[in-house]
Amino acid sequence: MTQFPAPAFADSPRVPRKMALIGKFRSPEIAASLAGLARHLTERGVDVLIEAATACSAADGALAEWPAGDFDAIGAWADVAIVLGGDGTMLGAARLLASYGTPLVGINQGRLGFMTDIAHSEMMLRVDDLLAGRFVPESRMLLEAEVRRHGEVVGASLALNEVVVDKGAVGRMIEFSLFIDGEFVYKLRADGLIVATPTGSTAYSLSANGPILHPQVSGMTLVPLCPHALTNRPVIIGDSAELTVRIEQATVSRVHLDGQVTFDLQIGDLVCIRRSSHAICFLHPPGYSYFAMLREKLHWSERPQDL
Amino acid sequence: MTQFPAPAFADSPRVPRKMALIGKFRSPEIAASLAGLARHLTERGVDVLIEAATACSAADGALAEWPAGDFDAIGAWADVAIVLGGDGTMLGAARLLASYGTPLVGINQGRLGFMTDIAHSEMMLRVDDLLAGRFVPESRMLLEAEVRRHGEVVGASLALNEVVVDKGAVGRMIEFSLFIDGEFVYKLRADGLIVATPTGSTAYSLSANGPILHPQVSGMTLVPLCPHALTNRPVIIGDSAELTVRIEQATVSRVHLDGQVTFDLQIGDLVCIRRSSHAICFLHPPGYSYFAMLREKLHWSERPQDL
Amino acid sequence: MTQFPAPAFADSPRVPRKMALIGKFRSPEIAASLAGLARHLTERGVDVLIEAATACSAADGALAEWPAGDFDAIGAWADVAIVLGGDGTMLGAARLLASYGTPLVGINQGRLGFMTDIAHSEMMLRVDDLLAGRFVPESRMLLEAEVRRHGEVVGASLALNEVVVDKGAVGRMIEFSLFIDGEFVYKLRADGLIVATPTGSTAYSLSANGPILHPQVSGMTLVPLCPHALTNRPVIIGDSAELTVRIEQATVSRVHLDGQVTFDLQIGDLVCIRRSSHAICFLHPPGYSYFAMLREKLHWSERPQDL
Amino acid sequence: MTQFPAPAFADSPRVPRKMALIGKFRSPEIAASLAGLARHLTERGVDVLIEAATACSAADGALAEWPAGDFDAIGAWADVAIVLGGDGTMLGAARLLASYGTPLVGINQGRLGFMTDIAHSEMMLRVDDLLAGRFVPESRMLLEAEVRRHGEVVGASLALNEVVVDKGAVGRMIEFSLFIDGEFVYKLRADGLIVATPTGSTAYSLSANGPILHPQVSGMTLVPLCPHALTNRPVIIGDSAELTVRIEQATVSRVHLDGQVTFDLQIGDLVCIRRSSHAICFLHPPGYSYFAMLREKLHWSERPQDL
Repeated sequence: MTQFPAPAFADSPRVPRKMALIGKFRSPEIAASLAGLARHLTERGVDVLIEAATACSAADGALAEWPAGDFDAIGAWADVAIVLGGDGTMLGAARLLASYGTPLVGINQGRLGFMTDIAHSEMMLRVDDLLAGRFVPESRMLLEAEVRRHGEVVGASLALNEVVVDKGAVGRMIEFSLFIDGEFVYKLRADGLIVATPTGSTAYSLSANGPILHPQVSGMTLVPLCPHALTNRPVIIGDSAELTVRIEQATVSRVHLDGQVTFDLQIGDLVCIRRSSHAICFLHPPGYSYFAMLREKLHWSERPQDL
Repeated sequence: MTQFPAPAFADSPRVPRKMALIGKFRSPEIAASLAGLARHLTERGVDVLIEAATACSAADGALAEWPAGDFDAIGAWADVAIVLGGDGTMLGAARLLASYGTPLVGINQGRLGFMTDIAHSEMMLRVDDLLAGRFVPESRMLLEAEVRRHGEVVGASLALNEVVVDKGAVGRMIEFSLFIDGEFVYKLRADGLIVATPTGSTAYSLSANGPILHPQVSGMTLVPLCPHALTNRPVIIGDSAELTVRIEQATVSRVHLDGQVTFDLQIGDLVCIRRSSHAICFLHPPGYSYFAMLREKLHWSERPQDL
Repeated sequence: MTQFPAPAFADSPRVPRKMALIGKFRSPEIAASLAGLARHLTERGVDVLIEAATACSAADGALAEWPAGDFDAIGAWADVAIVLGGDGTMLGAARLLASYGTPLVGINQGRLGFMTDIAHSEMMLRVDDLLAGRFVPESRMLLEAEVRRHGEVVGASLALNEVVVDKGAVGRMIEFSLFIDGEFVYKLRADGLIVATPTGSTAYSLSANGPILHPQVSGMTLVPLCPHALTNRPVIIGDSAELTVRIEQATVSRVHLDGQVTFDLQIGDLVCIRRSSHAICFLHPPGYSYFAMLREKLHWSERPQDL
Repeated sequence: MTQFPAPAFADSPRVPRKMALIGKFRSPEIAASLAGLARHLTERGVDVLIEAATACSAADGALAEWPAGDFDAIGAWADVAIVLGGDGTMLGAARLLASYGTPLVGINQGRLGFMTDIAHSEMMLRVDDLLAGRFVPESRMLLEAEVRRHGEVVGASLALNEVVVDKGAVGRMIEFSLFIDGEFVYKLRADGLIVATPTGSTAYSLSANGPILHPQVSGMTLVPLCPHALTNRPVIIGDSAELTVRIEQATVSRVHLDGQVTFDLQIGDLVCIRRSSHAICFLHPPGYSYFAMLREKLHWSERPQDL
């Protein structure tokens, strides 16, 4: 199994003393939960920093007790960042903190997520587990994508789930060529192409009929969106591959990272995708199981069996 | 099998004496072919009318010998319209002539199409077949779609292939509810929904994993685009059903008809889809076979067998 | 919509006075339920007949109070047959009673079925609805399949769900040719081919990636099992078509009807499939909705919406 | 990328001097080709050994000039084995020679195969390449499967493509539980389960809608056959995983290795599958490209592009 550049935390799993709290975007209704959590941590001697936008959106200074800082401040300072929200909140935090190696803990505000794997009702219990050093660290790869136009980089970002090159709004297929490590692979007319990490394989890629990649597989999955060629199928390649998508024909075309960052594309643009040198570390609650999570989220057979 | 409102031509397959010629949009390179065809028809005593935009785009008055007219003039006057182009040209002509019941003959300019089923090299031969009454008429259903906002119709058009409700360019799923004959069927988060005719079942719908509907099946197929619910599958319903798609959540959303006509949608908009009272009549060359066309286009087993 | 040969019951929905009870095969545990139901019916003046094998498998003569008869006796005598069991019990009863036109009511013994749509807990309530004339009759088509070898019919049966031609146990693909109305369609190497009715489209065919056909669509669906040709897709054809599958290459090959009747096939055998002249009438409880049943069985969006 | 136990040949790519020739099973028609090839090699000073069954099936002692030996003799003696046949011949040779680490060269007798990647017409040319040291060695993983019954191993074999657990001939689903590294993953009713290597991902698994795994991905793919649970999707797991499939319910059930070796299964049997400690080395012709081969075999876009 490929060794990711290990976040410091994963190396020496010492007890975290400096924690950042990150809330769902523009969701003032979670301020009370965050305040309760911040208080709980303070009482246990943990220093707390609130993500700036989260602090702002809380009404009536509900989080004013604690200092606030932006993602760079969090990355530079925190031992761990706790995210309250959904998988979307985790995606954003992962992209912004990846270069700092800050480990993430995800607490879901609504339904259990693939990444926010701690139920809100168990929040305090799991935070105490974290303070007692009971947690399961897991490293997840990220992708980095660059848009090159006439030889210059005109856009770049990271993705934890997937990079999608697709048609814009016009309702017509685009045509693109795919190269892997500089070698031509295929030219395709389609609605687009998803390049997903193992983490992203249970997100949009799954809706597009892509396979599920276990996080320990060192690969990425290429899933065409509505390919005109019916023999075009999902392909899994190793995570050391460098992909290039060249836009050949399109009225409108765009590239999307985690459904959160978007660049407009032009004919001739190259979208270059590779594994990022950064990885993100998730801290799972004790007893975490990837397959149990799949069963739960995909409504697979209800009752576990013993071997 | 449902009886479509039969175009007059299908009832009494008399020999056509008034023919319109329609060329691929903005394709001056086909003017010579069209002129050759027009001359061939004139020599055989057929009156010829050139579609106005086709006549315009021909350089140097190459088609100035013959009168030109718009689609309404063609519909009112012609016994048959001959289309030179691709399936896209046929789609456009079908929508514009549907209300007149003008039968269509399709000659492809490049690769064999599902609808333009006469090779360019056989054009003259097949036109003589047509003049001799040797052809296979086939009626194909169309869909009509209306967009209703706050109780008013704000857009309406016909589709020969499909009506697609989808997300715009933003890269996020939309949420919509589907009703059939006023009954709630499902609420879905997805990239969109295709409602296709049998004719459209071999077009975009097929790329989205939809089934192939034989033209004689009186049905339409509902194919979700990247549905979040993995148990959502293509559904075939009878062609007397009235569908309503209501936009529940969307940053941007649009409805596309045959990939040629587009309306922007808002949250709460209703897209109402039903079989049109109009149908289009294709005139196929002698020996036409739907399954032979499928085999050719989908590269199925090469050699036909005898039973 | 095609008119099936209407069972007498559907024509004049008079109140049924003679009812047959059919239990799940070799399931003595349902004898008490059956006896309770039989008593309930007798008290309401209904004459009751117990299917012979059902009566036999009930311990201690628990059903000895009522006369027993085989399926032919049931068909000749009963106004309605009530089935207690699962969808498999319904399939068997439908095939055996189809030629008599006996309407069926399905009560499930475990989980709600696609066909056994009355919960066991509501059995008495729904039977009273039936006696009061409150029910929704629905006609469903059947298929008939014949195996022809050297010009002779060597096997024939009916199917309510599907006819499957597949490889035997050897783990190797078979090769077969498909003809529709005598015309060659394709030659395919695959694990097999499913020919399903609308009723069968939510059974095995759905697992094989086939589409859902609404029962009012007059069609059947052809779904290949693991086709070697990746462009081979499910095809829906009209229900007046006559299909012939000819076995071209096979170590072992079989045809299965509803997963309950099986014939061994040889190279050169023809399996001829067409709509049966018989249909089966289901009596659904008041308020029955096909789409509500799909939502329930496929776990589609939970909360119905108003239009 | 995982390092396979490297065959000696791959380490020091010296020029092969001892070659074995293996022909398609029971195919006397290839004896002339084999004799021509053997003569060509002998003239270049290479020692030749003919696989015993291949020698036997050649009529009139066409191959009697050269010594014959069984697979064990080939494994113990040969530097390289050249296979003339199809992918099936390669599969058999790979399983039988895997423990010896004998590299394989594949020459196809008919259509280009995924593994027999040298056209018959280029046979002599490519053999000269081989003798000149121009070739591309590639290591491919194998699976080993054991059947355990009441704690005892009752069957075991290797597979280069896939291990398939499926229903027998009866036309009914089986039910099985899947465990990975001893952990319960899911219980499924289905026609079966394919566990495929990257090599096997373009064979049967692809027909069952499985994804394509590039040979450099250290993983295996789990593809359900006609799963009753519609949310069950292909899963890729790392190649260090140990899988156990336990038969829970089945009228008949079997396990197939490469479609060539079969064991009957009973309820309660465990099929244990893991990566074999053996690997097989393919010697590809100069200029070999995996993606070029995919394009050719899957009829992807015809014309390669330059980046």
